[in-house]
Amino acid sequence: MRNDWATFGADLHLELRGPRLRAGLMDALREAVRGGRLAPGSRLPSSRQLAADLGVARNTVADAYAELVAEGWLTARQGSGTRVARRAEPRPAAEPAPERPPAGLSPGNTPIGIPAVRAARRRAPVPAYDLRTGSPDLASFPRTAWLRAYRRALTAAPNEAFGYGDPRGRTELRTALAEYLARARGVHARPERIVICAGFAHGLMLLGQVLRARGARAVAVESYGLGLYAGLLRKAGLATPALPFDERGARVEELTRTAPDAVLLTAAHQFPLGGALPPDRRAAAVDWARATGGLVLEDDYDGEFRYDRQPVGALQGLDPERVVYIGTASKSLAPGLRLAWMVLPEGLMDEVAAEKGAVVDWMCGTPDQLAFAEFLASGAYDRHVRAMRLRYRRRRDELVTALAARAPGIHVGGIAAGLHAVLSLSPGTEQAALRSAAWHGLAVQGLDQFRHPEAPRSQEGLVVGYGTPPDSAWQGALGALCRVLEGVGEAEAEEPRSKGIDRGSTA
Amino acid sequence: MRNDWATFGADLHLELRGPRLRAGLMDALREAVRGGRLAPGSRLPSSRQLAADLGVARNTVADAYAELVAEGWLTARQGSGTRVARRAEPRPAAEPAPERPPAGLSPGNTPIGIPAVRAARRRAPVPAYDLRTGSPDLASFPRTAWLRAYRRALTAAPNEAFGYGDPRGRTELRTALAEYLARARGVHARPERIVICAGFAHGLMLLGQVLRARGARAVAVESYGLGLYAGLLRKAGLATPALPFDERGARVEELTRTAPDAVLLTAAHQFPLGGALPPDRRAAAVDWARATGGLVLEDDYDGEFRYDRQPVGALQGLDPERVVYIGTASKSLAPGLRLAWMVLPEGLMDEVAAEKGAVVDWMCGTPDQLAFAEFLASGAYDRHVRAMRLRYRRRRDELVTALAARAPGIHVGGIAAGLHAVLSLSPGTEQAALRSAAWHGLAVQGLDQFRHPEAPRSQEGLVVGYGTPPDSAWQGALGALCRVLEGVGEAEAEEPRSKGIDRGSTA
Repeated sequence: MRNDWATFGADLHLELRGPRLRAGLMDALREAVRGGRLAPGSRLPSSRQLAADLGVARNTVADAYAELVAEGWLTARQGSGTRVARRAEPRPAAEPAPERPPAGLSPGNTPIGIPAVRAARRRAPVPAYDLRTGSPDLASFPRTAWLRAYRRALTAAPNEAFGYGDPRGRTELRTALAEYLARARGVHARPERIVICAGFAHGLMLLGQVLRARGARAVAVESYGLGLYAGLLRKAGLATPALPFDERGARVEELTRTAPDAVLLTAAHQFPLGGALPPDRRAAAVDWARATGGLVLEDDYDGEFRYDRQPVGALQGLDPERVVYIGTASKSLAPGLRLAWMVLPEGLMDEVAAEKGAVVDWMCGTPDQLAFAEFLASGAYDRHVRAMRLRYRRRRDELVTALAARAPGIHVGGIAAGLHAVLSLSPGTEQAALRSAAWHGLAVQGLDQFRHPEAPRSQEGLVVGYGTPPDSAWQGALGALCRVLEGVGEAEAEEPRSKGIDRGSTA
Repeated sequence: MRNDWATFGADLHLELRGPRLRAGLMDALREAVRGGRLAPGSRLPSSRQLAADLGVARNTVADAYAELVAEGWLTARQGSGTRVARRAEPRPAAEPAPERPPAGLSPGNTPIGIPAVRAARRRAPVPAYDLRTGSPDLASFPRTAWLRAYRRALTAAPNEAFGYGDPRGRTELRTALAEYLARARGVHARPERIVICAGFAHGLMLLGQVLRARGARAVAVESYGLGLYAGLLRKAGLATPALPFDERGARVEELTRTAPDAVLLTAAHQFPLGGALPPDRRAAAVDWARATGGLVLEDDYDGEFRYDRQPVGALQGLDPERVVYIGTASKSLAPGLRLAWMVLPEGLMDEVAAEKGAVVDWMCGTPDQLAFAEFLASGAYDRHVRAMRLRYRRRRDELVTALAARAPGIHVGGIAAGLHAVLSLSPGTEQAALRSAAWHGLAVQGLDQFRHPEAPRSQEGLVVGYGTPPDSAWQGALGALCRVLEGVGEAEAEEPRSKGIDRGSTA
């Protein structure tokens, strides 16, 4: 054992020169597990011992171990030390089923009809404050930095960049993303495994069509999530059973029972409930995929924004051949750019590229792709994400502080991360809170609108997109929210009385 | 010389065993030329001599020579015998040929499967010259003017422009387009009737889905066109019967007999044949639509480019409630922008917007939409189109002049318009011309690849995208094209003789 570690330590030592000791150590450990040098179940040296071997502070090693436990690479148990997590052996994926015409585009299925648009046209009066989720603070779009990147990119672009492009997206962007995703999100990414798409929904639609063509029947989704996404999968001809959940998040162990072909997970920050999938369930999801040939579709919509600690690495790092990673610029930069990306297992790459290429038009404009590549490569993206992380973190802190003062009964759920939080409400009060919000000129969403139709209505709450308003409107929006919740608290306090009266009067 | 031939003959002898002597001989000769064993300009042995060397009938050799002349591998001149053709040296293209999806691939019909993508990765040698259709001269993209428009647009944009947008597209762009289309193309356009899409194919796909959802069964298409488009309609569940054609264009009067729900027409400049639909047939198409409740889908892909006169106004002007107008920036500006637009009858507007909105992701990035609005409103688009009109017109004139001098038998079809022309070929020579073009390092398409499978193979020709190459490559491309067509002319001139021999030998 000691000898192994000497070797490993020596390898590692090269990596550990530089300012980011912990990150380097984590990378080296992940690599050793992935490459098989550290077998599942094997015990790691104590943090004290490894720190001495490597000549680094013990805390550096202890922190790295803790994060890798959180990511599902390692396990730590009282009395048994830190070990490499056991998981099912990867096995060769089943042969892809013969290609069938994708079923996704049959309009007869579920035409989203005229009423939706008509309703949108009969616009409700514009609310004074908007705390709906789904959008970053649009006022903070870094126009100057983006313009600089765009100018540089357009000036340097080869002529062919203005033509019809590779359906996978521009090489420049895929190369810049591979570097960024490996560094910032622990994604195993190579440019040739990346497909640029026009948003998360676009990527999911392509995946749905490819899976359906392979003969897949069902993609499990979380009990709470965006119905739009489940709808896209159903449009592709797939069933979307709900994965049950409990207080720790999606009950991944149910996958072996429901036996879907794939599962869609927001592992880093459940949308909308806000939890992080615990390490054992992260590992279990990958184990299930390995054991059954299933796929995990990882929706990493806001993975850049974690406020209490370093972001947990992407699930995809655990097994790049069984996890599809999907990220987007819609939360970190702006939805208006229509830029997202998938990192695909090797076995899916050709089929997804072919499906995307079948409709040549569906790609982002190449100038914006090149601008984003330049934005990433120049470090402007990192700077922007850091600035936004501070801004959103401050808002979340202010939300927690204000609620503690003005509506102390309201619990702020989930981890300190992302652009939204769920405020838990007592049973039977969500609808009243939404009506009160509308009355106060506040646009906000109830938890129930994100519930899978099959899932039990087990909790109520408001989903508050604190990232949405511009800075100038944030304090006003927060004030309006507090007034709503003060009122709900009062109504709750009154409810028993009023119910009593009601009962009395109808009896 | 004799010695060379002894070696060559020996090599060849192995290949020539078997039933298909002539084919085997042709393969061996092509291989010898390709591999450099037979240098350009070198003289081949007489057919009598080679026949004796190989122990085959003289006619076999004479026929093989004649076919290779037709293909452009060899030349045959009175008094100078048969020689290996001198060809343009394949030079490293200044511009890598833009990667384009092969025109005519219909995803519904033959889903672009994995093999297509794999094949694309195993890149064929880049041709020296590209005269395929579908792309404007990418080197002429007005980078400076576009950047100016982009900067102005991004600076002036309201914050909400960076969010999820109206599925119909940005108001600024729809307003600028309505003004431009009315002025330049005679389109009856109001901003609220316009939907921005990511290209013509995107618009057609939306229309196909909406029509299918309404119960439509068939959309008639022209006998010659892009199979990709018919394929998209079939993917939406629609039949795509071919509209017969004659020397005046699509036989619109057949619509009353075939009774489709809609018809897709390139009325201003038939693609690829190049004619303009005559006035009586334009009127007949609209009359049919009015009488039956049918729809005309007008593909105005290059309506800005007419050289002999003012462009004929769009068909849509005749009846905006029965014609859907679809235009694109892919020919006038650059395909890489992914910008196109539909002008819809009132009765379709809600359904198309709903279908588009159902997949929120599928829109162009808003910065590019705003930049294009500014580009239009500032007059930069008009200036660019005027400059390109002069450039393409000059190229077309040079094409006509060069062919008149060097291949006088070749007719340039269609009106003086657009970015491409059809060069008519004698029956039975299209394939040989394509092989010859490949040999000369020239990428060009045959008419047959645009033919509807149900339509008779009534004409042959090359479809020449003279708009495609950059100015620096245009003269070289034209020269290569002339060499190809000279060879085809020669082969034709010799054909009767070789055929006579054939007939003699089989009689």
